[in-house]
Amino acid sequence: MDKTIEHKDYLFKKVYDYVLHRIERNEWKEHEKIPSVRQLAFEMNVHRLTVLKAYQLLKKHDKVYVKDKAGYFVQSIETKHLENLNQSNPIVSAYLQKNHLSEIHQPAVSYQFSQALIDSNLLPNHYFSDYVKKVFDLYPKVLATYSTVQGDLELRETLTQYFINQYKTHISADELLITSGSQQAIHLIAQTFIKPRDVVLFERPSYSAAIDIFKAQGAQIVTVDIHPEGYDLQQLELYIKQYKPRLFYLNPTFHNPTGYTVPIEQRKKLVELAEHYRLLLIEDDAYHDIYFDEPPPPPIYTYDSAGTVIYIRSFCKYISPGLRIATVICQSSLMNALLTAKSLADNGSPLLNQKIFLHYFSSLRLQQHLEKIRIALQIRKEIMEEELAITGWRWTSPKGGLNLWVQLPNNFPTELLLSKSFEQNISFVPGQVCDPLKQLSSWIRLSYSYANEKQLKEGLKRFVAVAQSLSK
Amino acid sequence: MDKTIEHKDYLFKKVYDYVLHRIERNEWKEHEKIPSVRQLAFEMNVHRLTVLKAYQLLKKHDKVYVKDKAGYFVQSIETKHLENLNQSNPIVSAYLQKNHLSEIHQPAVSYQFSQALIDSNLLPNHYFSDYVKKVFDLYPKVLATYSTVQGDLELRETLTQYFINQYKTHISADELLITSGSQQAIHLIAQTFIKPRDVVLFERPSYSAAIDIFKAQGAQIVTVDIHPEGYDLQQLELYIKQYKPRLFYLNPTFHNPTGYTVPIEQRKKLVELAEHYRLLLIEDDAYHDIYFDEPPPPPIYTYDSAGTVIYIRSFCKYISPGLRIATVICQSSLMNALLTAKSLADNGSPLLNQKIFLHYFSSLRLQQHLEKIRIALQIRKEIMEEELAITGWRWTSPKGGLNLWVQLPNNFPTELLLSKSFEQNISFVPGQVCDPLKQLSSWIRLSYSYANEKQLKEGLKRFVAVAQSLSK
Repeated sequence: MDKTIEHKDYLFKKVYDYVLHRIERNEWKEHEKIPSVRQLAFEMNVHRLTVLKAYQLLKKHDKVYVKDKAGYFVQSIETKHLENLNQSNPIVSAYLQKNHLSEIHQPAVSYQFSQALIDSNLLPNHYFSDYVKKVFDLYPKVLATYSTVQGDLELRETLTQYFINQYKTHISADELLITSGSQQAIHLIAQTFIKPRDVVLFERPSYSAAIDIFKAQGAQIVTVDIHPEGYDLQQLELYIKQYKPRLFYLNPTFHNPTGYTVPIEQRKKLVELAEHYRLLLIEDDAYHDIYFDEPPPPPIYTYDSAGTVIYIRSFCKYISPGLRIATVICQSSLMNALLTAKSLADNGSPLLNQKIFLHYFSSLRLQQHLEKIRIALQIRKEIMEEELAITGWRWTSPKGGLNLWVQLPNNFPTELLLSKSFEQNISFVPGQVCDPLKQLSSWIRLSYSYANEKQLKEGLKRFVAVAQSLSK
Repeated sequence: MDKTIEHKDYLFKKVYDYVLHRIERNEWKEHEKIPSVRQLAFEMNVHRLTVLKAYQLLKKHDKVYVKDKAGYFVQSIETKHLENLNQSNPIVSAYLQKNHLSEIHQPAVSYQFSQALIDSNLLPNHYFSDYVKKVFDLYPKVLATYSTVQGDLELRETLTQYFINQYKTHISADELLITSGSQQAIHLIAQTFIKPRDVVLFERPSYSAAIDIFKAQGAQIVTVDIHPEGYDLQQLELYIKQYKPRLFYLNPTFHNPTGYTVPIEQRKKLVELAEHYRLLLIEDDAYHDIYFDEPPPPPIYTYDSAGTVIYIRSFCKYISPGLRIATVICQSSLMNALLTAKSLADNGSPLLNQKIFLHYFSSLRLQQHLEKIRIALQIRKEIMEEELAITGWRWTSPKGGLNLWVQLPNNFPTELLLSKSFEQNISFVPGQVCDPLKQLSSWIRLSYSYANEKQLKEGLKRFVAVAQSLSK
């Protein structure tokens, strides 16, 4: 039996290598059609499943691509990082499958300016294990127990108290839902409130994963521009009256990707508009605590008395990505609908993660840790701004968050910049990916949060050199 | 500011108590309409939001219910545990919101025969914390790191090797997806493959949460009965030809709720039917390792060469419910579709949970632990069967799994048995809940896995007494 398995594994690898070698030796040229599954199976005297598996892996490694019903073709070197889904815009499609992209490119890219993640060295990894051990002492049966759908009551009460203290808002633990990260929160909201062809309002630009999620639900997206000073509220009101959107998904504090923060007066006005037009506001506040000089204005949610705001607060990025904990706050009738969706989706987030998070969140060390992160990120932001100064490109220096949103000169060849950067082991996010309308091709998002200071300097010098070579 | 918050909390509680007292003193009788939100707000001189919150909590505690646009009414005592969603069948609707039910009833119910969970005292809680500490030593940055969408490669490779060793199947780590429990796996599959009005085939009876999930996707459900010896394959084939279902959701090993196991000859035939009619088989195998005498037949999935089976293997129930880890196995083109859904749903399960699970799964202690669980559960099954012997009710003694599926005499008042049992602090699952056709009202599911031996004996004696009082 063992021989049979080894033999099958050997055959699979044999097919894979056979195809790869011919591609690498240029026996099969770029965009040339390779033998069909059936053909190669016959030629190599192996099972079709074996060839199919090898072809799937070659496709996943961007060595070949599939054209509708025409078969498999050799991938070209330039577009090999970009073409994967047969979509019309390869840059966009590549990033729309962003995790797929990171699986492909992560090992290869030394200068990572595309993922808005915090350098793991800035997180207090050593102390985490202390908290975890404490959790097991406090709750010996934590691994044997399911959480409720809504989330651990102790955690919800702790978070409730936190929000009451911070913002003088009055909410109760019943109005909180614990989700497995903000992605899940957005997805549950989209599933619960959006049916195909519902109109949803988005900022432009916005968070690409949220764009994907609402589109997957069949939503039609109408956009309102976000500026350093917020929105054009008159324009916003016109759109609301004209298109009657079901909801407005917004990220008004250290906005991703722009870094802009919507001022207080607008926050109050937004709530009034929402109540007047019966519009749900979905406030995604993932970057709230990552401020440089002073804390940002209170969440829009704290100005809401009519129950039109659903507030998403993720703690993942700067506390513990590996735990995946976020909370949603909203009034009861909205909460009941979300609970149904959550119960179908996974029946409750894992209890262990909630308890670990609870204890770390409640600790003094968290505050010290956040302080250090703020300082470290501000330094990195400044390094990035120094390195980019020579280009003459324009950006608004953000007061918090993880990214610079940079405007390239008109007609700058952004796609080429992307592929040349990849060749130099550098990644960033093209503006198109953050645009529901898929334009904004003169803009790029550069994250300063992931690379360390040395990598930032080296990588940005290289990046600037690549850009300059394209400007001639 | 603090005074204001305390005052608001006080008002909320005041309204809640006010209404509750009147109901308990019978000043407001069962099914009587209570004051509207606006009315009571005016009477008590509080904000409408305060009254609304109090009413929502009363509704959640089953003290009042809402009738369409008519307002709030006092809940009756008999149906108070059952009515919550304005659905036509209260028993079914109560259990369809099963977690809601457990939140309401868990504290009150001493004899828990409704939740197919394993007594946490049977799980090796003490040793878990050792494994967790080990994980932090091995992966110091585990909390600072996201998992990929598909799941930790090391875990997938370990599980792949496990399946290869167990079943002599040949799969690769690419064909595994890690999900946050089997609930999420079923949900992702429903979202990916089912559009409204697609027909899906279900066993009858089946797993109630799966029924809910597919119905929520708009599926039309066609059922095929499951018997102690499996299915009527001729009938099955007729249904497939007639209704052309997209998929067949099945649980062929220690089936929930019946405990039946589909024999090997049928497993092979099912795969042939699936391939012939291009039917997807969704094999949910959550109870595979909970066998009493000998291991069950290999999964249907191991007979599949055409890629028509999607295999779900959850380890939650008997390894660690608190971690929520399951794996899905299927061929690449199906996997790619699931990956898109998973990436939208939550972008990957938490890494910490996967690493903890990986190390525990790979340990010797797991085998010893499983052995103990099997023995303990077999003893509990036998205790339950002994206690029920006196009733003359009929059931097929299961060879594994967590439940007895018991047939009551014709016309037995099952609803009344349920409410009288609740009064005696006993819970079980009425057969209707497990039936896609919402009949099977003479059947009940009793789980022997949660209560300890003493609680089993006491609780079942009480239960039998209640049942006997209803037979007269």
